[in-house]
Amino acid sequence: MRQNLQLVTVAVRDLAASRAFYSEGLGWRPTLDLEDIVFYQIGPGTLFALWPVGSLAADIGFAMTLSGGFSLSQIVADEREVDTVVETARAAGATVLKEPQQAAFGGYHAYFADPDGHPWEIAYNPGFSVAEDGTVSLVPIG
Amino acid sequence: MRQNLQLVTVAVRDLAASRAFYSEGLGWRPTLDLEDIVFYQIGPGTLFALWPVGSLAADIGFAMTLSGGFSLSQIVADEREVDTVVETARAAGATVLKEPQQAAFGGYHAYFADPDGHPWEIAYNPGFSVAEDGTVSLVPIG
Repeated sequence: MRQNLQLVTVAVRDLAASRAFYSEGLGWRPTLDLEDIVFYQIGPGTLFALWPVGSLAADIGFAMTLSGGFSLSQIVADEREVDTVVETARAAGATVLKEPQQAAFGGYHAYFADPDGHPWEIAYNPGFSVAEDGTVSLVPIG
Repeated sequence: MRQNLQLVTVAVRDLAASRAFYSEGLGWRPTLDLEDIVFYQIGPGTLFALWPVGSLAADIGFAMTLSGGFSLSQIVADEREVDTVVETARAAGATVLKEPQQAAFGGYHAYFADPDGHPWEIAYNPGFSVAEDGTVSLVPIG
């Protein structure tokens, strides 16, 4: 598994309130601001997302609560790499929470839990790209 | 508050087991591997840390459990910026979990919770630096 991460997603109770906090209170500019999810770039090639807790829980297929409401995502090159990373993680002792499959966002993904239950998503997302200067472009493909 | 993040820290139950998972199972190379914490670079200028849940909870001064075991950190330029970011967050409605103060690691930091309780650390750490190519150097200063 490559040693990187492109997305930290945190679960939110009230997306409007959380969006107001980050976009207005802290003055952050979204990369992609949709009705049900907001993405902010927080590093070269790296995004931070606000997503309602029910949506994140449903996507993982895992009883996620706000107190444990986050996931870490790695974007890989293609569907096959999703499969191979999941097999690497499984061989390393990870619990696979969601086997590799077509994702609601239009790509292909899987989730595994590390030894402490922290969820990692491994995703192929043709709508995600990074410019030479590190700027992320995220286009809905679903 | 600047729109970036340098560190995602996840709480672990058994550091030896978690370190073995990431370092051996997934083959990741640590930036800094100490007896009680391990850092891996997971993006340009960005680190991922494994830290025992009791240590993370004690550092935040917050009843953190493994299910909610993570924090997000932003490294700022100096102690004064820690203070000003915390005031910005407070004005935006954040709950300050730990007021700005000298940190156990030798620098200066504070924690606030976003509207959903997700903890952000704002830290000045003279041992943290980033090379032009994005490689992080992390030197213990405590």
